[in-house]
Amino acid sequence: MNQNSVKTMDPRIEEHAKILVEWSTEVKKGDMVVIRATPHSHDLAVAITQQVAKAGGSTVVLMDSEEITYGFYKGADDDTLKLLPEHLKSLYEKTDVLIALRSPVNTRATSNVDPKRMMTRNKATQEISEIVMEKRWCLTVHPCATLAQQGNMSMDEYQDFAYGAMLIDWKEASKNMYLIKEHLEKHKDVRFTGPETDLYAKTEGRIWIASDGKHNMPSGEVFTAPIEDTVEGKIYFDIPFMQQGKVIEGVRLTFEKGQVVDYSVEKNEEAFEAVLETDEGSRYLGEMAIGTNRGIKDYTLNMLFDEKIGDTIHCALGRAYKDCKGTNESAVHVDMIKTMIEGEITAGDEVIYSKGKFFFE
Amino acid sequence: MNQNSVKTMDPRIEEHAKILVEWSTEVKKGDMVVIRATPHSHDLAVAITQQVAKAGGSTVVLMDSEEITYGFYKGADDDTLKLLPEHLKSLYEKTDVLIALRSPVNTRATSNVDPKRMMTRNKATQEISEIVMEKRWCLTVHPCATLAQQGNMSMDEYQDFAYGAMLIDWKEASKNMYLIKEHLEKHKDVRFTGPETDLYAKTEGRIWIASDGKHNMPSGEVFTAPIEDTVEGKIYFDIPFMQQGKVIEGVRLTFEKGQVVDYSVEKNEEAFEAVLETDEGSRYLGEMAIGTNRGIKDYTLNMLFDEKIGDTIHCALGRAYKDCKGTNESAVHVDMIKTMIEGEITAGDEVIYSKGKFFFE
Repeated sequence: MNQNSVKTMDPRIEEHAKILVEWSTEVKKGDMVVIRATPHSHDLAVAITQQVAKAGGSTVVLMDSEEITYGFYKGADDDTLKLLPEHLKSLYEKTDVLIALRSPVNTRATSNVDPKRMMTRNKATQEISEIVMEKRWCLTVHPCATLAQQGNMSMDEYQDFAYGAMLIDWKEASKNMYLIKEHLEKHKDVRFTGPETDLYAKTEGRIWIASDGKHNMPSGEVFTAPIEDTVEGKIYFDIPFMQQGKVIEGVRLTFEKGQVVDYSVEKNEEAFEAVLETDEGSRYLGEMAIGTNRGIKDYTLNMLFDEKIGDTIHCALGRAYKDCKGTNESAVHVDMIKTMIEGEITAGDEVIYSKGKFFFE
Repeated sequence: MNQNSVKTMDPRIEEHAKILVEWSTEVKKGDMVVIRATPHSHDLAVAITQQVAKAGGSTVVLMDSEEITYGFYKGADDDTLKLLPEHLKSLYEKTDVLIALRSPVNTRATSNVDPKRMMTRNKATQEISEIVMEKRWCLTVHPCATLAQQGNMSMDEYQDFAYGAMLIDWKEASKNMYLIKEHLEKHKDVRFTGPETDLYAKTEGRIWIASDGKHNMPSGEVFTAPIEDTVEGKIYFDIPFMQQGKVIEGVRLTFEKGQVVDYSVEKNEEAFEAVLETDEGSRYLGEMAIGTNRGIKDYTLNMLFDEKIGDTIHCALGRAYKDCKGTNESAVHVDMIKTMIEGEITAGDEVIYSKGKFFFE
């Protein structure tokens, strides 16, 4: 191997690794780091391992894939579904930082696994998830053919797309997001207006979170949980989104006292109705949010990116985040997105955003 | 995904996984299993996960590669080299079974890492290696292009080669290996004769180990550590072997009182001399062994296979196995192999093997 051979790695992989280690998870001397990777994200795992070592930490790389998960479900009986992986729990207990690399092998591999069995498994491993959530953690993607295909792009185009969203000045982006948060929290309510849209909710006492690339990479959203029964008005979500393998398009909703009282859907209405009818909480909004990442110019049916598109807002039916002081409970949390280039966001008497510009721009 | 899609996996992968789980490591209900895989062995990790789940166990898959190791060394300073990965230690402490899948990404990735730094790292992580050695563990290969290339074969040929060595009747093979062990242990010495070869050693009080696919897959060897200062005579190793990236050929050795007193080498003599001059113990034999796996017909410069070729013997200069009650110590353990199709193995007054046949054949 000659000394230059490592340079054949796309230099953006190294830059990505640096952002994850230095900005997102702030790895420091002595940190125990877990990287959760798929075979497709091996190169990023190499680059992160190097950056973590440089920061004085030590990594363990876990290999995860939908096919491995499928293999487990294919082999396991009911007892095994309920078996807690004590060794994995023990690993995470001694872990400071988790960096999860989403670069799926086959996003549909577990499509035919009985959801009840998955629920049983999730319940059995719940305590591990809870341990992980208390660590410094970040979820990101490593560009791969599976994701490029999902986004209708060549690999080359997809790399440009993904790195365009991730390799930005996060310090500057963070400063702006905290400005938005601060101004939203000064007021007692929020209002989204625009074509076919006028949606109002009270937010007093709730927390707006500036998602500035710590837990999600890319990120770029400021979100809260509205007071559940105060959502009023109508909204038109013009950006398609994926739900249980179906692409749902053109959702229009009308709210009264927080609840969806009327709706129409241009494409895959049944898939949308299944969401709405999940439980009591799935007819209420668990989240209202503003997308701020202008590095993301178009949707790719991958919510990690789509909900952060600059000059959009999104709302989610279902489960609210406790960190926002939300209380809505549901088995689902389904995000839907609206372009705001012709819209306005107001909070109390202050215009936060209007037609492509925030108040500070 | 249609119901048949999983069938596109080579059925030999599933058979391999079954042997590893049922025969090699005897996974049972409640077992915590670690699979150490590379990106190239993902499919075998899927199949093992399924078989472990079927046996009632739970798996964690670790991703390992020479490039990840290289990334660590590139980033780490001296302090970080000495940092114990506490989370990895904690994982292994709660583990019952380790299955390591060797399917390298790039066997030469760490060629230029300073051996002293590797030694420092090995020392720092020594206690983890010791924890692992006390578990049920098995090392195997998953056919991949890197290994096929190393063996001068197409992938198709390499798969036939590797599965031919691994997918055999291990119960039957084990029975025969234990027969050989039993007869060798009845006597006080062993003697290998054949073309340009007459090598003698005392073995009284030493243990012959029947390696029947528990720790290595493939396996097929019966080995011991000779009494260090009793090795006498000469031997010609006619099968090439790899040492530090060089292929060494045609080694002829003469022993007196256990020590190499004369030698010649047909190819890469310098690389051989480096072995011999490592330390005091590297001039003595740490191992004498009989290869019994007739599923392996030719060498591929991969010692995991080569030392098990049927109708061969091998000897190793350097470190002896404590399990055999060997005492020779050295930083190296270098195996060299000899074809025995024209040779004979005797123990005391009993002919154990002669020209292609064991005593029981």
